[in-house]
Amino acid sequence: MAGQITLSRLADQAGVSVSTVSKVLNGRTDVSPATRERITRMLTEAGYRTARPSGLVDLIVGGLNSPWADALVSGAVQAAAEGDCRIVINSVSPHEDFDALLSRIQERGTDGLLTVHRLPGEASRARLEGRGTPFVVIDPPVEPGAGIRSVGATNWQGGLAATRHLIGLGHRRIAAVTGPPDVWCARARLDGYRAALLQAGLPVDDALIRSAPFSPPGGREETLRLLDAGEPPTAIVAGSDGQAFGVLRALAERGLRAPHDISVTGFDDVSVATWSTPPLTTVHQPLEAMTATAFRMLRSSGGAQPEQVELATTLVVRDSTAAPRN
Amino acid sequence: MAGQITLSRLADQAGVSVSTVSKVLNGRTDVSPATRERITRMLTEAGYRTARPSGLVDLIVGGLNSPWADALVSGAVQAAAEGDCRIVINSVSPHEDFDALLSRIQERGTDGLLTVHRLPGEASRARLEGRGTPFVVIDPPVEPGAGIRSVGATNWQGGLAATRHLIGLGHRRIAAVTGPPDVWCARARLDGYRAALLQAGLPVDDALIRSAPFSPPGGREETLRLLDAGEPPTAIVAGSDGQAFGVLRALAERGLRAPHDISVTGFDDVSVATWSTPPLTTVHQPLEAMTATAFRMLRSSGGAQPEQVELATTLVVRDSTAAPRN
Repeated sequence: MAGQITLSRLADQAGVSVSTVSKVLNGRTDVSPATRERITRMLTEAGYRTARPSGLVDLIVGGLNSPWADALVSGAVQAAAEGDCRIVINSVSPHEDFDALLSRIQERGTDGLLTVHRLPGEASRARLEGRGTPFVVIDPPVEPGAGIRSVGATNWQGGLAATRHLIGLGHRRIAAVTGPPDVWCARARLDGYRAALLQAGLPVDDALIRSAPFSPPGGREETLRLLDAGEPPTAIVAGSDGQAFGVLRALAERGLRAPHDISVTGFDDVSVATWSTPPLTTVHQPLEAMTATAFRMLRSSGGAQPEQVELATTLVVRDSTAAPRN
Repeated sequence: MAGQITLSRLADQAGVSVSTVSKVLNGRTDVSPATRERITRMLTEAGYRTARPSGLVDLIVGGLNSPWADALVSGAVQAAAEGDCRIVINSVSPHEDFDALLSRIQERGTDGLLTVHRLPGEASRARLEGRGTPFVVIDPPVEPGAGIRSVGATNWQGGLAATRHLIGLGHRRIAAVTGPPDVWCARARLDGYRAALLQAGLPVDDALIRSAPFSPPGGREETLRLLDAGEPPTAIVAGSDGQAFGVLRALAERGLRAPHDISVTGFDDVSVATWSTPPLTTVHQPLEAMTATAFRMLRSSGGAQPEQVELATTLVVRDSTAAPRN
């Protein structure tokens, strides 16, 4: 209680808000250096011991060693270099206790957390707030609630753009090999596909929509099912580049080629999207810019800033799409 | 001078070597915790201020956002988690001043450096040694000199294994699309290719050896040249998986397929080596184990350990190789 009073008195003396004093006390970096220095001096004189910024920001990502994760790591490292800060990489598997990992990181000291595709639990959030440790969620797995800062991509618009591109080429029978139905970004992409069909006056045929893991085997298996189930589509919208590679494999197994027999689009535009034969027409998800944006949100006080940001996806037309044969 | 005398007296009193005392003074982690604690106490009493381990190890890698870099990052993060340490990722471009980056990292404090494909210059090495900061080079770009610790892979043996595999399938006209001639690992792989041919009594035809950047476009262009220059080979040994993807593209452009028309092998076995159509037969380079090994070398005193280690490569047979058609 005595501490509380002194903090607000300090704030009065310094002509800043109590929250600013509290931030300095907790070693937050979202206070201007001059103000931080001044408040730190006042706090030290008053007998407080301020936490020092660690100069470290922790990125938590599941499943390293995938082109998708690598783009996120790369974006964070670049942003941190500009911000004179270091990025610590943490890997978390689906079986690991995410909140326990968050606790460990806090104990070691961090200026903030970037968590990929994972939301801290309520207890963790309270602890993070209590210690003044900011966090931003990248590619949230579900719709983040109020008060949770996040950076995603315009997945719906990307699904729309890919499908519209195929419609523009003349395709009318377009299938979707989409991600797991419980994954937020997969749902948005699929809804974009549906919207494009409806907008063009084309029917949405549920038999042409197949859900699969975001991987080449996932894309391959569902494509084989599509090809073996009566009249095949003339184009396939895949939910990720990994799935699109699997679609290409399935076509080859049935003696078909993209785009000659069937057009294919990917999603993400990972570094290896140009490695396939043919190079993928795909929706660019700005993964590096997403972590860079999240990093900047982490370092800003956030008062006037939007809490949830979606960066624009853009269609990149390469060689896996063309007009249908007939 | 006075300091020197006191350090050796301290070492005498503690019954350890001067070098151990010096390590503790510099915050090195390759001293047992009990000894470190004891020496730290003696040093503090004698008025010395010991550096504290930062708990951070810095990985420096050029060209993030490639499947190759991602495997190295992943290996380092896993090893660090086991060693209760954090991995800071640093990216360095070919145009950047590598030694200036090393200085910046040292100023910020680090327990050690893992540098990928880059050797610190002489002045940097002296500075690192002076401050007791250990470093290990991963995949050295040239033969590292004495006193430089490094971890690589048995590249020569990998080139041998891939070529021998093709010879075993019945191929006699085997081309090599290899990496840049000044890159150490590329030279070793090519020499393994040559050794396998010579061992099998097959001629080494320089017209079938083409050097190209480690990338899909590099592999594609040199394969097109091979295909357009008279009698084509029945198999192509690529210098990397990226090049192998380019080889597959070039084959498709000429209406050919692997392995039906021409067999193809890659090198590295990056995460996306299974994404191609057909999945690549390739030489597995244990990238994750390489950074993990380098990490462990960093944390050990190194006295009895070998300075330079090459981890075994292994051939992974998938679907891009088969017996020649005739």
